[in-house]
Amino acid sequence: MLSHIKIVLVETTHPGNIGAVARAMKNMQMSNLWLVAPKIFPSADATSRASGADDVLSKAIVCSNLQEAISDCQIVIGASARCRTISWPELSPRECAEQFVSHNPDQKIAILFGRENSGLKNHELDLCQYLLRIPCNSEYSSLNISAAVQVVCYELFVAAGLQEKIDIGDRGDVPLATAEQMESFYTHLLQTLYDINFMQGNSSTSIMRRLRRIYNRVQLDTKELDILRGILRMSQGNKRNN
Amino acid sequence: MLSHIKIVLVETTHPGNIGAVARAMKNMQMSNLWLVAPKIFPSADATSRASGADDVLSKAIVCSNLQEAISDCQIVIGASARCRTISWPELSPRECAEQFVSHNPDQKIAILFGRENSGLKNHELDLCQYLLRIPCNSEYSSLNISAAVQVVCYELFVAAGLQEKIDIGDRGDVPLATAEQMESFYTHLLQTLYDINFMQGNSSTSIMRRLRRIYNRVQLDTKELDILRGILRMSQGNKRNN
Repeated sequence: MLSHIKIVLVETTHPGNIGAVARAMKNMQMSNLWLVAPKIFPSADATSRASGADDVLSKAIVCSNLQEAISDCQIVIGASARCRTISWPELSPRECAEQFVSHNPDQKIAILFGRENSGLKNHELDLCQYLLRIPCNSEYSSLNISAAVQVVCYELFVAAGLQEKIDIGDRGDVPLATAEQMESFYTHLLQTLYDINFMQGNSSTSIMRRLRRIYNRVQLDTKELDILRGILRMSQGNKRNN
Repeated sequence: MLSHIKIVLVETTHPGNIGAVARAMKNMQMSNLWLVAPKIFPSADATSRASGADDVLSKAIVCSNLQEAISDCQIVIGASARCRTISWPELSPRECAEQFVSHNPDQKIAILFGRENSGLKNHELDLCQYLLRIPCNSEYSSLNISAAVQVVCYELFVAAGLQEKIDIGDRGDVPLATAEQMESFYTHLLQTLYDINFMQGNSSTSIMRRLRRIYNRVQLDTKELDILRGILRMSQGNKRNN
């Protein structure tokens, strides 16, 4: 799904960063990596930091100039940390992802990341339709290149809807307790509170209301309910044995 | 604004990763870093990878066990790449950020990141109310620890609304051309097309409609319009000189 988007690193100095970029890309199911005139590549540092994403590294295409890397792309986006004097249309990573993930599958898109110390030069930005700017601390705005690629690829992955569904409070196969089961639990709980003489002098209504608030809030599943009722039974039993 | 959220690294092996985490945090205006039993710290590797975020490193609090790091926190969230057999309430980084950034400023929140190779242990997850899972490639799901921290802190930063406003097509101080200025430009353009004999045999209506579509789409500002009208004037002049 994300194969129409290539990540292009321009004149990267540290090979370790190239490896970290490959890992960041593979984590987000991307693999189309182009390297424009990297200082050192291939390199053991790159492979070590790729940490299992060496397939992305070995498929990476090395070329000597940027034009070659973007020649087949309809959309070219340049990542930039700095404000530029000539103002460009700017996209955040989220806007970029939402706009281009499902835009037109035939359209090839390049996202350029510049040198570690100086980013992209103005003549390289001239080739871009958009600047991509990662929201960050304006006092300390230079992300490590692999961290920047990680954020951008993460947004692309999320926008592409490739993640497995995450449910808050998903308990796998165990069903949540029904209202009837909960009522039966509260009856048991109240009886137990009497059995252990907790209720002496206390108002059962206000105590029970507080206890209901607690257990309703946690949305018990049936397995958890079984455990709690087991505890209640044991409390009753112990009391009776005393 | 994000000072109520601490990042806790548990038994990190590589000091370089601790430095990269400090950088990732500072990029997103966070600085509350706790290190539980780091293998090597402080370290030149950490300082080098922190790359200017050494203030975050030097303020980092080192402690010997996890309980110490989270004792003052109301909410404890554990980052995890793996599916666990016991299912936990799970949050994505975005859900986590939306839920906790502006939740209750008095509430302290810890986000735990485990060992590079094995993550958090089950007895450590027992201390968490939520699992945090970064959406990623299910076949290759282990992000570098600093990349994971970068994504989470980025989402917190965005949810906190701390970024400067990014406008698509913002041109700084130069105002966009008004409709009247655009009409005057189109009149000039049409006249020029006649002057240079482009219109011979062509239908001016359909040509002008196509040209209007192009220039309307790019939303010219007044400076750009001046440049284009200068070009038109020169085209007319050259033709007249021929």
